[in-house]
Amino acid sequence: MTVRVGVIGVGMIGQDHIRRLMQVLAGGAVVAVTDVDSARAESVAAGLPGVRVHPTGQDLIGDGDVDAVLVASWGPTHEEYVIGSIEAGKPVFCEKPLATTREACLRIVDAEVASGRRLVQVGFMRRYDAADRALKATLDGGAVGAPLLMHCAHRNPSVPPYGFTTEMMVSDSAIHEIDLVRWLFDEEIVATGIMKPRRSSKAGAELQDPLTVLLEMASGVLVDVEVFVNASYGYDIRGEVVGESGTVALGDGGDVAVKLAGQRSGRVPADWRERFVRAYDVELQEWLDAVAAGTSTGPSAWDGYAATVAADSCLEALQTGNRAAVSLRERPDFYTKTQ
Amino acid sequence: MTVRVGVIGVGMIGQDHIRRLMQVLAGGAVVAVTDVDSARAESVAAGLPGVRVHPTGQDLIGDGDVDAVLVASWGPTHEEYVIGSIEAGKPVFCEKPLATTREACLRIVDAEVASGRRLVQVGFMRRYDAADRALKATLDGGAVGAPLLMHCAHRNPSVPPYGFTTEMMVSDSAIHEIDLVRWLFDEEIVATGIMKPRRSSKAGAELQDPLTVLLEMASGVLVDVEVFVNASYGYDIRGEVVGESGTVALGDGGDVAVKLAGQRSGRVPADWRERFVRAYDVELQEWLDAVAAGTSTGPSAWDGYAATVAADSCLEALQTGNRAAVSLRERPDFYTKTQ
Amino acid sequence: MTVRVGVIGVGMIGQDHIRRLMQVLAGGAVVAVTDVDSARAESVAAGLPGVRVHPTGQDLIGDGDVDAVLVASWGPTHEEYVIGSIEAGKPVFCEKPLATTREACLRIVDAEVASGRRLVQVGFMRRYDAADRALKATLDGGAVGAPLLMHCAHRNPSVPPYGFTTEMMVSDSAIHEIDLVRWLFDEEIVATGIMKPRRSSKAGAELQDPLTVLLEMASGVLVDVEVFVNASYGYDIRGEVVGESGTVALGDGGDVAVKLAGQRSGRVPADWRERFVRAYDVELQEWLDAVAAGTSTGPSAWDGYAATVAADSCLEALQTGNRAAVSLRERPDFYTKTQ
Amino acid sequence: MTVRVGVIGVGMIGQDHIRRLMQVLAGGAVVAVTDVDSARAESVAAGLPGVRVHPTGQDLIGDGDVDAVLVASWGPTHEEYVIGSIEAGKPVFCEKPLATTREACLRIVDAEVASGRRLVQVGFMRRYDAADRALKATLDGGAVGAPLLMHCAHRNPSVPPYGFTTEMMVSDSAIHEIDLVRWLFDEEIVATGIMKPRRSSKAGAELQDPLTVLLEMASGVLVDVEVFVNASYGYDIRGEVVGESGTVALGDGGDVAVKLAGQRSGRVPADWRERFVRAYDVELQEWLDAVAAGTSTGPSAWDGYAATVAADSCLEALQTGNRAAVSLRERPDFYTKTQ
Repeated sequence: MTVRVGVIGVGMIGQDHIRRLMQVLAGGAVVAVTDVDSARAESVAAGLPGVRVHPTGQDLIGDGDVDAVLVASWGPTHEEYVIGSIEAGKPVFCEKPLATTREACLRIVDAEVASGRRLVQVGFMRRYDAADRALKATLDGGAVGAPLLMHCAHRNPSVPPYGFTTEMMVSDSAIHEIDLVRWLFDEEIVATGIMKPRRSSKAGAELQDPLTVLLEMASGVLVDVEVFVNASYGYDIRGEVVGESGTVALGDGGDVAVKLAGQRSGRVPADWRERFVRAYDVELQEWLDAVAAGTSTGPSAWDGYAATVAADSCLEALQTGNRAAVSLRERPDFYTKTQ
Repeated sequence: MTVRVGVIGVGMIGQDHIRRLMQVLAGGAVVAVTDVDSARAESVAAGLPGVRVHPTGQDLIGDGDVDAVLVASWGPTHEEYVIGSIEAGKPVFCEKPLATTREACLRIVDAEVASGRRLVQVGFMRRYDAADRALKATLDGGAVGAPLLMHCAHRNPSVPPYGFTTEMMVSDSAIHEIDLVRWLFDEEIVATGIMKPRRSSKAGAELQDPLTVLLEMASGVLVDVEVFVNASYGYDIRGEVVGESGTVALGDGGDVAVKLAGQRSGRVPADWRERFVRAYDVELQEWLDAVAAGTSTGPSAWDGYAATVAADSCLEALQTGNRAAVSLRERPDFYTKTQ
Repeated sequence: MTVRVGVIGVGMIGQDHIRRLMQVLAGGAVVAVTDVDSARAESVAAGLPGVRVHPTGQDLIGDGDVDAVLVASWGPTHEEYVIGSIEAGKPVFCEKPLATTREACLRIVDAEVASGRRLVQVGFMRRYDAADRALKATLDGGAVGAPLLMHCAHRNPSVPPYGFTTEMMVSDSAIHEIDLVRWLFDEEIVATGIMKPRRSSKAGAELQDPLTVLLEMASGVLVDVEVFVNASYGYDIRGEVVGESGTVALGDGGDVAVKLAGQRSGRVPADWRERFVRAYDVELQEWLDAVAAGTSTGPSAWDGYAATVAADSCLEALQTGNRAAVSLRERPDFYTKTQ
Repeated sequence: MTVRVGVIGVGMIGQDHIRRLMQVLAGGAVVAVTDVDSARAESVAAGLPGVRVHPTGQDLIGDGDVDAVLVASWGPTHEEYVIGSIEAGKPVFCEKPLATTREACLRIVDAEVASGRRLVQVGFMRRYDAADRALKATLDGGAVGAPLLMHCAHRNPSVPPYGFTTEMMVSDSAIHEIDLVRWLFDEEIVATGIMKPRRSSKAGAELQDPLTVLLEMASGVLVDVEVFVNASYGYDIRGEVVGESGTVALGDGGDVAVKLAGQRSGRVPADWRERFVRAYDVELQEWLDAVAAGTSTGPSAWDGYAATVAADSCLEALQTGNRAAVSLRERPDFYTKTQ
């Protein structure tokens, strides 16, 4: 069975997903697209024989040839398209964020629970990275014992001098670690904090870069996340879990080791595409497989809601300078049953 | 366009390629199968709706719905099916070896040259491994200078005590390095040699394990390959090229690093599947892409011929204890033009 | 010239320094010892021909054959012996802590300043570790740019279930990082903080283990130190400085790499002796060399004072749960001139 | 007890040993020197109060104040001074080579055996390198099983374009691996061979650089040694032993890891001094300790003889292009008893 996918939003990310569906993955095909910029939608469809262009996302969702929906439009529009998909009974893959406010996330959760069926997957791709999966497998295997601490670093080579705000260091960058640790430790974040190290002179004048984000898990595990978006040397994602009996950390080797001019060296990835290209492929392949099988396996609407609330808490800590609690609604049983 | 593939030989390797074509890769579909064991062919087809079973490989090749042929049958049958595909004007992917004798390889080369079109790809998958590609890219980039030496190791955890012969350590194991170095250095092997280290007591009584294979390239680059098929600790593929200005080696890190009980450790792959699963995927995806584009990009019939002749030379060196020359027919221009 | 050393306190550490002076280093000899336990002093001297036993530290300091004094007695006695040595005009090497209170440290500073000559070296041995020196050399070379953050971990395999307190995790363990960062960044610590991760069940009931110590440098560099004294797997000292252009971290390799049973592994040190044996040798050799040359090169009385004040600040943060300022007296010019 | 050492030959190496004895090590003192260039001897002694200058090595050996002799003169003079020391009943440390011909080595062996006491230590310093010792300890511990193969590389950044011959790549470079493997595996080399890879264009016209030296041990263990004296990128000593159950290799990490400009890198040593400075210190300290204790622990005259014979065999293989046997006299029991 080929899953016929409709794509809402065909900007950079949407186009990349289309390429993936058409040229890389098995079992899926793009059959319809739409975009707020209809010219762009037409242009993208022109290169894809047989792909229909819809005037609106709701039209695309209503298309009888569309089996499943992929939402890659502007964040504030996510709620409408995800709820529309739920109402149409169609599986929907929504790029992060699930929605831009906790209230909107809750409306999605409510709609999905009311529908009686898990239909929503949120685009948190760390869970699909081979190294992160090996880290979780080691943890779950028990060798390093109960987790106590985790040290993370999330470093980008640079961001534009204007337009990238300190808040985005939380909502666009640390959001990945927020989802990661909820998944790794299988528990909620109960409080957050922020620390402000010395600012890099390479950062824009308004930017607190680097920034340290603290995440306290329900069990007491304490996670520190260095977010540094002008780290200069490359794109570097680090993580080490310290357990009662040992530690497990993301590897730091490259494909090849070069010896030259007095140095033994390996490559640091240039950007997130190089580092996570496979994770994006696996993420979408597993979504297609689940859709074809009529199941749901990935980050849920609840995960999207919980991540948004935790990120809000970090932003509060950033403003007040104090520890901020994370207050979640009670988790519906709907999201705990295996699917 | 979906490439409709017919698979000849549905044993373990053939079934794995079918799984890959149906569940992992984009742009291909299995439409027909055949096997010397017709019950097995029927059984495999039973799980694949719409797949036709042919009584013979030649019938499958003649099927008008088959765009391209994948040969995964017993080695001695390869010649017939590859030449049959050439005669039918259909692209053919042939698992290694291309054929079991140099004469058979030459007949394939002659047939392909006569056809006027590159149709054959041989299943040497090292060229598709990300680390080997990074190694070649580094070499080609010139940073380490002209290559002078290469050290390789090809270690399997174990082989069955009976049935695996010293000759197979060349024809099944070192054959991968034989193709690898021809591709890495873009030149032919001109002579070979064998050295016999101390035998492992874990090897079957008839087996010279480990064995060192020496490959001399046309430029004088000297390659030593330790082949050790009862290495016990895991599946480990090593390679280091020594150039005039520096060296480049396959990395040796794992996805995660664990600290436990006085050790910092990383995982060694358990077997070739774990180590090369992605290389197999990439190999077949690039073949599908090339078929769809009407081009040819991978290891050619000439590469299959040259590898067979070099392996024969190693076997001669194994018997005589002396250096053995590699004598190739002149390379047709047909195989040097970019396609 | 042989530096004739008198050793005050011949417990485990004192005896280790005696072994070092007699059997490992050049240019020094132990000529006199004393200990609060006179029988122990006699016993140690019995194995060292020509070594005199003094009834008290002050007698030893007054011995005309003693060129320099090494204080390895109980912490509360350090002040008396260090000031005694200063008054006698003799160089003195004092094991950490310089003294047990900030007031006592200041009295030593005052005495030394009044003497007009640098005579005191404190036993902070990290500055003599080859890896820490390479880290500082890289920083000072400027390649990684201005430092912004530092991540440290200080892990011991275990401590006794009783008698080791949370306060000692600061005063005995983190004290090394406190001195290290003052030396690395060549600036004072201005504030401290404490974070409490999930407790290990392997820690004694009273112990907050692990503990995270935060150190804010005058320039804004933020240092986090994970102190974990029941880390189980080994003795592991980690450090990574994040600069504007890159990072530099302590290496994590061992002397040899072993591949066995599916793992590639290297050794983690068993304890501080294994990890820092050379640093202790270099520390005392450089002290002997400086004494012989009539100069002073190591951690000064001021360093001893500043470390004590910073540790006090951490203990305050531990009690209050809040950030605690570090308030130092103004640094005398005496300690800034190169000697 | 201080061992009073007389040094014969005060060129670069002799002066370095004097520095070591006077400024780095415990328990030794230089009391006399001599050199074929008497002005140089006077000049060196001028910086060392109380050191006597002798007109000849034999005079120095006869000096009643000299407890032990260190020979660092020109190779062809070693035999005379070593035998002179034996005849005087004085321990002698002789820099490699023990003597320049196998016959001279045998005369030393005969003289020492006749003296009834082990007095000679040869300057093979690899046995004192921490990493090589860890490698041997792992082997001897049995974890990796019986050794089968060893891969070595011995790379220098460069040698002068004139004056350094291919023969010296054996007698000055590979000689270290020759001694190393005899010690590691505790058995003799029974045959040798040479392979000639592609020459580096950076090597002088007469030089076969790199060169591969093969060493066959009595048990069948096969050792390949890549000797590359114009390797450009640094001084790099590699070694990996392949055993029946696993492998053990010299580590390849540095003191610190730097991340900069898209690379994660560590330092490769610049030269043998940087790589082996500690091994030289340990070597001479252990010699002093043994002399003081009246014992003998290091590489013996027999080791010097056996290494010379094996190196001669390599040179024969270099000339003839064939495998060359290593023919040793029967080993006297004198050299097998523990001392």
